[in-house]
Amino acid sequence: MTRYALLVHYDGTFFNGWQVQDRGRTVQGEIEKGIEVLTKERIRVSASGRTDSGVHALGQVIHFDLVNNIDLHRLCIGLNGILPPDISVKNAYIVDNDFHSRFTAIKREYVYRIYCSPLRSPFMAYRALWVSTPLSCSYVRDVTQYLPGEMDFASFCKKISLENGTVRKIESIDVTKRDEIISIKICANAFLHNMIRIIIGTIITMNKEGKDPSFIKEVIAARNREYSGYTAPPHGLYLNQVFYDPPLDNYVSAF
Amino acid sequence: MTRYALLVHYDGTFFNGWQVQDRGRTVQGEIEKGIEVLTKERIRVSASGRTDSGVHALGQVIHFDLVNNIDLHRLCIGLNGILPPDISVKNAYIVDNDFHSRFTAIKREYVYRIYCSPLRSPFMAYRALWVSTPLSCSYVRDVTQYLPGEMDFASFCKKISLENGTVRKIESIDVTKRDEIISIKICANAFLHNMIRIIIGTIITMNKEGKDPSFIKEVIAARNREYSGYTAPPHGLYLNQVFYDPPLDNYVSAF
Repeated sequence: MTRYALLVHYDGTFFNGWQVQDRGRTVQGEIEKGIEVLTKERIRVSASGRTDSGVHALGQVIHFDLVNNIDLHRLCIGLNGILPPDISVKNAYIVDNDFHSRFTAIKREYVYRIYCSPLRSPFMAYRALWVSTPLSCSYVRDVTQYLPGEMDFASFCKKISLENGTVRKIESIDVTKRDEIISIKICANAFLHNMIRIIIGTIITMNKEGKDPSFIKEVIAARNREYSGYTAPPHGLYLNQVFYDPPLDNYVSAF
Repeated sequence: MTRYALLVHYDGTFFNGWQVQDRGRTVQGEIEKGIEVLTKERIRVSASGRTDSGVHALGQVIHFDLVNNIDLHRLCIGLNGILPPDISVKNAYIVDNDFHSRFTAIKREYVYRIYCSPLRSPFMAYRALWVSTPLSCSYVRDVTQYLPGEMDFASFCKKISLENGTVRKIESIDVTKRDEIISIKICANAFLHNMIRIIIGTIITMNKEGKDPSFIKEVIAARNREYSGYTAPPHGLYLNQVFYDPPLDNYVSAF
């Protein structure tokens, strides 16, 4: 039995999210079917985290065990020949047997993309949130500077789980602009349900209402979902990178 | 009767090309329906040129006449509220009555995008041609330097029309690379049927076969479709800009 990890990216537009379910096409379902066609082994794969319907991934990490060994190049190239156009494997690794894409991940990084333009773009329709109200990169930067640190993010949580609480540690936030797209990269040990989408919705609501960037401090302090903004749609969100210790790059890989 | 021009962009993936036909969704059909909903006038629109199924547009120009005047901002914003997510209006103009999107155009510019990577990307699936064989920007530049000028491009024509001949004038070719994408921008007075897609297919075939860049001169000189490469797929092609004299920007516009 050998444990493999894959680095995969997918366009979430036409998926019913990550997890296999009764209805609709899922990323997990397509990958499991692809692995079965390639290896003749019917297995379950685990991801670093589920992505909701419409959410994209630039660097999702999954793992699974195979009885028979397979060459890592063949695993990448072969799977990409089988998988549908909206999923693709970027790299494959042979990992330790105690590696777990979800439970041994130490940090997760997401990017949210906002397309800033008075008129919408057909090319961004499902890939960035379109905002027609002027929104500056510096405003987003000024608001998000208050977010890094270990804090109670209850104001940015859809459903509070008593088990895991609402304290999380945002390691860093990086805001950049290229062409008409503002990208907000957020790295944390873990995220609450819909946390990033509510943070983005709050920034957009604050900007529309002409709020001072420091207003976000009051929203955080309230620890109440009613103080934050709307939940920004899933199609601007990308799972960018998942971090492990030791890093994935320390393992034998295809590329 | 007032003549209007629109600058529109569309993602060609889910269209059966530009022109209205018996079966399938077309860009022309959607725009005509949108204008009817907005203005209650049932009209025909003309484009600078038809784009084939799968071909995108960043700057298609269309024109049409309306009996009742409409505010140009309302024409843009209103139409964008009606049109499907994969088409959008960028600007609207009131033009002279003898302006014709196709017949008064003096130059057309297309961009062909090539995604260069050993593995395919789900985000480029329908937006660039994926090439896994290493292809350098300088090779593409070295080949394309031989193309500008007035020449017989019969080697790069799908169906030869006796009426219009096969002599065309390529004004300029500009090759750039950003991230993993090579963009080849070609400007000409007019193009032959599938001309750009055959030029691209020829460059890719030449690169694979290790041909010297100057080999393209032999292909041109042959004036025979059998000497050129395959027809590159439509999904890498974008109609970028259409030029008029006087330029569109000289007219009253919404933006």
